[in-house]
Formats: sequence, structure tokens, C-alpha cells
Amino acid sequence: MIEPKKIVIIGGVAAGPKAAAKCRRLDQTAEITIVEKGYNFSYAGCGMPYYISGQVSNAYELMETATGEIRGAEYFKNVKAITALNRTEALTIDRENKKIRIKNLETETECDLEYDKLILGTGANPAVPPIEGIKLLNIHTLHSIEDCEALKNLIDTGAKNVVIVGGGLIGMEMAEAFRIKGLNVTIVEMLPHILTYLDFSMAKLVENHLKEKGCKILTSLKVVSFGHEDGSIKVSRVNLSDGSSIQADFVLVASGVRPNSFLAKEAGLEIGSYGGITVNEYMQTSDPNIYAAGDCVEYYNRQTKKNVFAPFGSTANRSARIAAINAMGGEAKFPGILITSICKLFDYNIGMTGLSEREAKKMGYDIVSSVCPAPDKPHFMQNSKPIIVKVIAEKSTGKLIGIQVIGLGDVSKRVDIMAMALTNEMTAFELANVDLAYAPPFSPAMDNIITAANVLENKRQGIMDGISVEEVYEKIENGEDIFLLDIRGDEEWEWRHLANSTHIPIGELRNRLDEIPKDKEIIAYCKISLRGYEAALILEANGFENVKVMDGGLLAWPYKYETGK
Amino acid sequence: MIEPKKIVIIGGVAAGPKAAAKCRRLDQTAEITIVEKGYNFSYAGCGMPYYISGQVSNAYELMETATGEIRGAEYFKNVKAITALNRTEALTIDRENKKIRIKNLETETECDLEYDKLILGTGANPAVPPIEGIKLLNIHTLHSIEDCEALKNLIDTGAKNVVIVGGGLIGMEMAEAFRIKGLNVTIVEMLPHILTYLDFSMAKLVENHLKEKGCKILTSLKVVSFGHEDGSIKVSRVNLSDGSSIQADFVLVASGVRPNSFLAKEAGLEIGSYGGITVNEYMQTSDPNIYAAGDCVEYYNRQTKKNVFAPFGSTANRSARIAAINAMGGEAKFPGILITSICKLFDYNIGMTGLSEREAKKMGYDIVSSVCPAPDKPHFMQNSKPIIVKVIAEKSTGKLIGIQVIGLGDVSKRVDIMAMALTNEMTAFELANVDLAYAPPFSPAMDNIITAANVLENKRQGIMDGISVEEVYEKIENGEDIFLLDIRGDEEWEWRHLANSTHIPIGELRNRLDEIPKDKEIIAYCKISLRGYEAALILEANGFENVKVMDGGLLAWPYKYETGK
Repeated sequence: MIEPKKIVIIGGVAAGPKAAAKCRRLDQTAEITIVEKGYNFSYAGCGMPYYISGQVSNAYELMETATGEIRGAEYFKNVKAITALNRTEALTIDRENKKIRIKNLETETECDLEYDKLILGTGANPAVPPIEGIKLLNIHTLHSIEDCEALKNLIDTGAKNVVIVGGGLIGMEMAEAFRIKGLNVTIVEMLPHILTYLDFSMAKLVENHLKEKGCKILTSLKVVSFGHEDGSIKVSRVNLSDGSSIQADFVLVASGVRPNSFLAKEAGLEIGSYGGITVNEYMQTSDPNIYAAGDCVEYYNRQTKKNVFAPFGSTANRSARIAAINAMGGEAKFPGILITSICKLFDYNIGMTGLSEREAKKMGYDIVSSVCPAPDKPHFMQNSKPIIVKVIAEKSTGKLIGIQVIGLGDVSKRVDIMAMALTNEMTAFELANVDLAYAPPFSPAMDNIITAANVLENKRQGIMDGISVEEVYEKIENGEDIFLLDIRGDEEWEWRHLANSTHIPIGELRNRLDEIPKDKEIIAYCKISLRGYEAALILEANGFENVKVMDGGLLAWPYKYETGK
Repeated sequence: MIEPKKIVIIGGVAAGPKAAAKCRRLDQTAEITIVEKGYNFSYAGCGMPYYISGQVSNAYELMETATGEIRGAEYFKNVKAITALNRTEALTIDRENKKIRIKNLETETECDLEYDKLILGTGANPAVPPIEGIKLLNIHTLHSIEDCEALKNLIDTGAKNVVIVGGGLIGMEMAEAFRIKGLNVTIVEMLPHILTYLDFSMAKLVENHLKEKGCKILTSLKVVSFGHEDGSIKVSRVNLSDGSSIQADFVLVASGVRPNSFLAKEAGLEIGSYGGITVNEYMQTSDPNIYAAGDCVEYYNRQTKKNVFAPFGSTANRSARIAAINAMGGEAKFPGILITSICKLFDYNIGMTGLSEREAKKMGYDIVSSVCPAPDKPHFMQNSKPIIVKVIAEKSTGKLIGIQVIGLGDVSKRVDIMAMALTNEMTAFELANVDLAYAPPFSPAMDNIITAANVLENKRQGIMDGISVEEVYEKIENGEDIFLLDIRGDEEWEWRHLANSTHIPIGELRNRLDEIPKDKEIIAYCKISLRGYEAALILEANGFENVKVMDGGLLAWPYKYETGK
């Protein structure tokens, strides 16, 4: 009889349990053991903000299967025939003898665990910046169910003012959760805008929404120290780089996470430049008997062809499955990632995949982009809601580079369509001609992403000369002598318009050309800049030589309307 | 000075106005004329069911731009500098002299209209089957705003009983609209199920939903005649092929549409086997000066590499844009279509792209499929709703062939992801490893389509042996001696279960193997057949040789539970 294969998995939250389950499905006789340092197995970490906000009523829901079974040691034993050890720390990996040293944190006893194949799913830890006062009480990170309970306890016992340090995904999801619980929320981000993976004006539109929902957002500011009342060890103030100070009953530090690769590093496994475990396309580490998956590894970015650290629950699941297949003797290659992300913040959905315009330029791409606001369904449908799609492509070839989609409407569909396009290295023209599903309850006849791809193609071919809202804003602020041509209808104009702009509705434009100066730079726009584009074409056909269309029109304008007044 | 280019466009509903607008954007000096037989231009035909149901309150909304301007002759003149002639019929095309003969239907006057390039966007007409009594009053089709008004008038004047002839997309959308208006709705479909592009069991699940919403559905029955009361010329009965008869205050005939290619045919242009105008990849007809787009043409199916007739508003828009570019001297190739469709029927969303299992088999493919019901978001999210994903691929290669997605949740995203996959000829394994957007408000960590692709890959590699609900049903009905193994939890079993099935919860299975016969065919399942799959693996590892997993579990079971009792 063949000796059953011994599979040991370190980490019991996301990648670990996924790998364990797949190993079991591939081999009914293997001895499979999960070693987890914490109390809980296999919880949906991405659901924690919804537990804190109360949208998920019970922490158990984050640990349950879809049919209501808690994924605890009993479940793994009975349903999966997997030994799951919680409160058990993996201390060292003895690669030569293929065993790990583990310690039961309850009993403090140690023992060895042999393996034929070892899978590391040790995840990531919150980055804690070395700021003065960081050790004060009530300064938290969000990493585990225990962290959730601590934060919920603070809210339940009367905390009112929270400062979130870091304007990233988790920080912003928590901002929503705290606002739902009635707290005063201040976000401090050291870069010029939150959600720094977005381009500036898109992020500013998101900030506008968060501000409408009562969040205070401070950008381009650093936290220099955390203060406390005399005689207290609890945080009470957050002191900023501009000398100001914010009252805080508690603080959430959400400055990103770092791969938990300590054990791997100590065992001499290869570590990448971001501190994550290096794996090949089989999710195999530099030791052929050790695999790794989830947030502890660095991933190959299939778009940039470089390794990155990009911790996402979806990637953890996909990569763990591949690691398990290979650990069990199969063969499956993980093709890498794109860095696709999405979040819901209040009524806004915010998604992105590929590179931002800023990143792409930094990497040396000559790019062209389009910004298209529009209803996500035909405007006559009652459930239609606006979204803004920004598509970026390489200028010379039209090859797609990235997308950002924000707004009240269906964002996730457009992001996933672009993830498919980037995976297949498609051009904007190819994307614009895909047979996507259309019916009025779901999308416009020309989907927003198709329109955005067409506009991009127009710009790329020089049919349309666009200018970004950022550039227009700069020209206004610098007092440049530009001619802002607002070609919307009368009602739209009356509702609000930019300072120092001129109003000529598109239907009257052909008869009012003499009102427009021939010697100035003309910037045409409407609500979304479709009519703005048509206006520019009319002007160009009539001898106006310096006409640009403001990308995305006024719906993409994140600044105040009285700018430059 | 160069003579301005003369562009004439026949058809003013979908493809025509789109082509006209694009021509104008490409050339500010061209003389562009739209000739439309009906009263209205550029209306959203796909929105008509929502106008009839009252979800769209005013017919004008279907003819408005997003900013509220009616797309009438004035609009085309002022905003687009396009001459739009309504109530004007194109009588003949004189290809030699490059002119068309038109007739003003109000004044009955005729004249010629010269063109440099002609674009045909003549659309499609409802197919009217030659059934006895078809000319009776109150038998309608749905094609124009005028048809909508006639139907609305019938409802407003007290009609209560409607019979819909044809279980296709438009018929079913109208069934919902009529139910919303409080009518008794009976659908008659001559094939074995409605929405005949779906596979049998998926369509039956949709039928179950429509029945829950009060629709009466009669399948495998033909209408043999329409009857009327003595002395009346109004329809009052619909007589069926089984001898039965249904009371009807009015009838909607929704038996598909046929390309309106009469004018093209008369002019000697090449016509395809489905009666649509033949075009090349430039949307150019057999006359190089005549282009065609929209529902009047046959499209190249990029998946099957054959021409098809597939009228969709989205295709009309995309193809019209390409026709316009080429007509104006540019060069753009239309890559063809996939036949992607989606509809909303009550709370159900129903989408599909590519081939069904039935079609694929008919075309000679050796196929493998997976059926995966699951919540469209993590089960702990309050807004999560179930969907069922059926994916079909080629067995030998795993190359994807098609998808069907139905259910209460987000269907359109998964259909569009598959449209992208088919466009790029991806395999199931490749699809399963795409970096799609994940956050709990939008999708599970492993998206439903990724899970479906993984299950398909398991079946393809022989790790999982599936059996369709249709096959299981047939075995039960035929009295075959099979062992139905329901491995759900106690509560699930108590709620309901198949007749003559045996209940062993998955957690007890390893200890109760002696209750299962080794000599029978065992069919394992649970709610969605994930635990069913694990049960099969356990049984196979314990010497059971004839074990199958029922695809999709009980959520995919469209039949009565007491079947075969």
C-alpha cells in the first residue's frame, strides 16, 4: 500500500483553506493539516467592514458556508477530512527534513509536523508606520475578527470621532462603515488624493461623493504624531504636518499591508523586492516541495510583465487552487494578475483594472485616454444611474492599458469587461466592436465602455482633440486667455455653469459663429462632451484652428464651478 | 471647391440615424438625408415593452436624447445639419444613376434623391404566420410606437385576456408588461419551451418563474386558428393544435421578425439565405456605393464563421457606425457578432451568448458543460441573489462555446465576460484564471463564472462525472434502478427533497458508506452539487464505481419534486 501523502498548509484564512479543500478533492487519502495561528478559520476578511457597519449582523456569517455551517475544526474534520489546528503557530520550517515546528498557543506545547508538500498561505499584516504615539490605546488596524470586535466595542461604548490614517481601499470602506454607525469621520491621506491607484480627477470625484456623505477628507497631509490627554494612555488627538490637530476618540491605521513572509525568509526561501515570497508560475517557491499562495507572495503582473505585491481575496483563491493542483502532482500554470479592484463607498461604485494614466506615463507609455460620463442604462429607464468611464490606451497602437469606472451605476461589469480585454491584449477598436449583451434594463444599446473605446479611437486618430479637466483647471488658475464654450441647453446652463464661460447651445452654434474669437484657444464642452465634440467639429470646419473638447464635460469636472472667477 | 458629398440613408429608426450622425461627425460639409417611412425617427424600439407597462411614462422619452431633446426633423436640422424626412417612402433604387425615388406619404408627391453613397437601414418587420383568422381585429404585432398606442388603448378600454403567440424575447418581455397592467396572460409556443435559444432545463426554470408571476405557458402547441363571435370581426378565441381553445380579448403575435430587404432585392443587391442583405466586412453591399446596417442585413457570426440573421439594437448601432465610416471614405472592418442576448422577465434576468448545448451538438461539437447555481455575491451580503451559470466548451480542447445565465442576481456581467472570452477564443482554464474585480458588494471571491469554468474543467479532465437534470429525470421517468443520494443537511432535506431519494448528510457520509449499494448507479447531489461532488469523490475513493454528480443540484432541477413517486 502506498503511504498517504502528507500535505501541511500554514495559514487558515483565505489561500490556506482553499488550497486544503482542493488538495482533498484531488486526493481522498492524503493527510491534510492546516496550521492557523489565530482563533478562526476561513473567514471572509473582505466582509469585515460590513460586519462593523451592521450590514452583516453576526461575525459567524463571515465564517459560514453558503448553507450555514461554520468552517471550524469540526467542519474541516467531518466534511473535508482535514485536520485544522487553530491557535497553533508555525515556528520554523526544516526544509532538509521536510517538517515544520509548531506550537500550540493555548498549551504552549511544541511538536514537529512532517510534510511531503508544504503550502504557505500566511497572508499579509497591516503596515504600522513608526509615528510618535502609535502605541497609544485605541489606535487600531483591521486584520482579524478580533480587530472588528474591538472597533465595534469602541463604537458601542460611545466613541464619536474617528480618524482614519490612509485613504486606501480598506480605509475608505471603513469610512463608510463608521459613517453608517453615526461617527464623525476624518480621513488623512499623505498623497494628493485618496484611492491613489486612480487618476487625480477621478479620485477627486469620489472624494466629492464622500464629502457629500459627511466624511472629512484631508489630503497631502501627514500624521506627525498621536496625542493624548495628560494622565491618559488613550489617543485623543491626531497631529498633522500642517500644524493642525484633529480630535479623535480612536484611530484606524489603514496604511496598507505587508506580506507575511517571515517564516519563508527564515527558512531561506527566495523573497522578492516587495518582501513577498517569490513563486514561479506553478506557485512553487524556490524549494520545489514548498508552494505559496495568497497575500504572502508576489505576483506576476501579466500586463507589465513585472512582479508586484497586490493582496486581493480573489487572487488568493485563484492562486491557492493552482498551488494545490501542483502540490498534488498535477500541472497548472497561474497566468498572473492585472491588479483589478473594486469597492463600494456609499452610493458610489469605484472600479479599476490595468494601469492608471499616471502610472502608464511613468512607465514610459505614450498614451491616449477618454473620459465618458453617461447613464449606465438608457436614460428612459427608471433604474438608470450615471457612471464615468475612463479608458487608457497606447497612442501608437490603440492597445488598451487600463480603465477606471466610478459612479452610482453598474461599474463592476465594465471593469470585468476591461479585465477580459487586457487579458487578451485587445485594442480599443476591437473592444468597441464586441457583441455585448443589450436590453434596456441592463445597458445602453452602445455600452458605456464601447462608447469610451470609440471616443478614445477618435482621439487617437486625431478626429477629436481632447483636453483633460486637470489641464483646463490649470489654464484657468494660471489666468490663461482661453475661451470656455458651453454648448448645453438653456436649462442646463441656468442650473449652473463655469465662471467666465460663454453659452451657445449646440443648435444655435452654426448661426452664431461670429460670437467666437478666432484667435483664442477654444475649449468646448457640454454635460458629457458629446455635443462638445460636435461643436468642435463644426468650429473646425469653419476655420477655427485651436479648438479642444474638454474630456468628459462638466460631469467629469471635480472642481468648484466658480474657479478662476 | 469640391462638391459636397451626398449621403442618403433609408431608414430612420436605429441604424439609419446612427449612421447619419457618424457621417456628419466625419464630414461637416456633406449633404446628409434620412428617409423614413414612419412618423417617428430614432426611437428606442427595445424600450417599447417598458412604455406599455408604464415604467416609461411617455412615448416621447423613447425618442429623446439624454438631455431631453426630441430627435425629430428640427433636431436633426439644427443640431446635426441633417435633413430628416418622415412619412417618406423610398420606392426604388436606381443604382446606375445613383438616385432613389421617394414618395411623400402625406402629399403623395414623388421625386428623386441623388446619392454618392447610400446607406440602407431598413430594419426588420414582424413575421406574421398565415394562420386562419389572422386578419381579425385586435390581433397585433409590436413594431412601432403606433403599435404601442394600439395595445395601450386596448388595455385602457378594458381588455383583460391576452394571448401571446410565440415565446421569444419580445413576446416574453410583453408578457411581463401585460402582467404589470393586470392582464391574464397566456403564452403559446410551438416548441417544447420558451426562449428557444436556451437549453431545455434552463428555459424550464425561467418558465417556472413566469408561472409564479401568473403567466400561463403552453408549450409544444400550435395556434391553428383565431376565432371570433358571430357577427364580430374581433378576435375572441385562440384555437390550438390539441383541440383546446383560449379566450382572448386581444392577441400579440410575436413570432420573430424578418429582414426588410425588399428594396435592396428589387435593386438587384445580393440577398442572403435568411433574406437579409448580404454585406462584406465593411458593411458594404454587392454595390460598392451602397452600404447596409442594422436588422436588414445578415451578419457574420465570428464564432461559427457563418452568416446569420440576428436582429439586435446593439448590433444595429455598432454596424451602422462602421458602415458610416466606410461610406465616408474611411476604413473600418466589422468583426461580426456572437448572438449575445439578455432580457429581464419579472425578477429574473436571462442572458446568453455563443451556442447552446443543443445547437453545439447539432453542429457536431463534442461538448462538456457545467451548471453552477450560487449567490451572485457572498452569501453574507444582504443584496446577494442567486444565479445559475451554464458554461459549454469543447471537450477535447476546453475552448469555450457558450454561456447561459439566469436568475435573480447579476446576470449581465457574466454574459459580457463570456462575450469577451468567446471573442478571444479562450479556454475554460484561461477564463478561470482571469483577474476579475472582487469586493463583497459585487461578486464572490471566486466569481460564479470562474467557478463554472473550474467545474467544467474538472468534468473535462474526468475528475468529476456529471449528469444533467434532464438525464436524471429521464432515468426516473423510465423507472431505472438508480440510487438518488441527497447529501444536504437535515433542515434542507426536511424543507423538500426528491421522491425516492436517500438522505445522508455529507459530514456523516464517510461513516455511513454501508448504507449505499455498490451495484447501483449512484447520483449524488446537494443544493448546488458542490457537496454532491465531494460526496462522489469520497464514494469513488471507497470503491464505488458508478457515481455521478447531478449538474447544478436541486437548484437546477426544473421538474416537480414528486417525479417518479
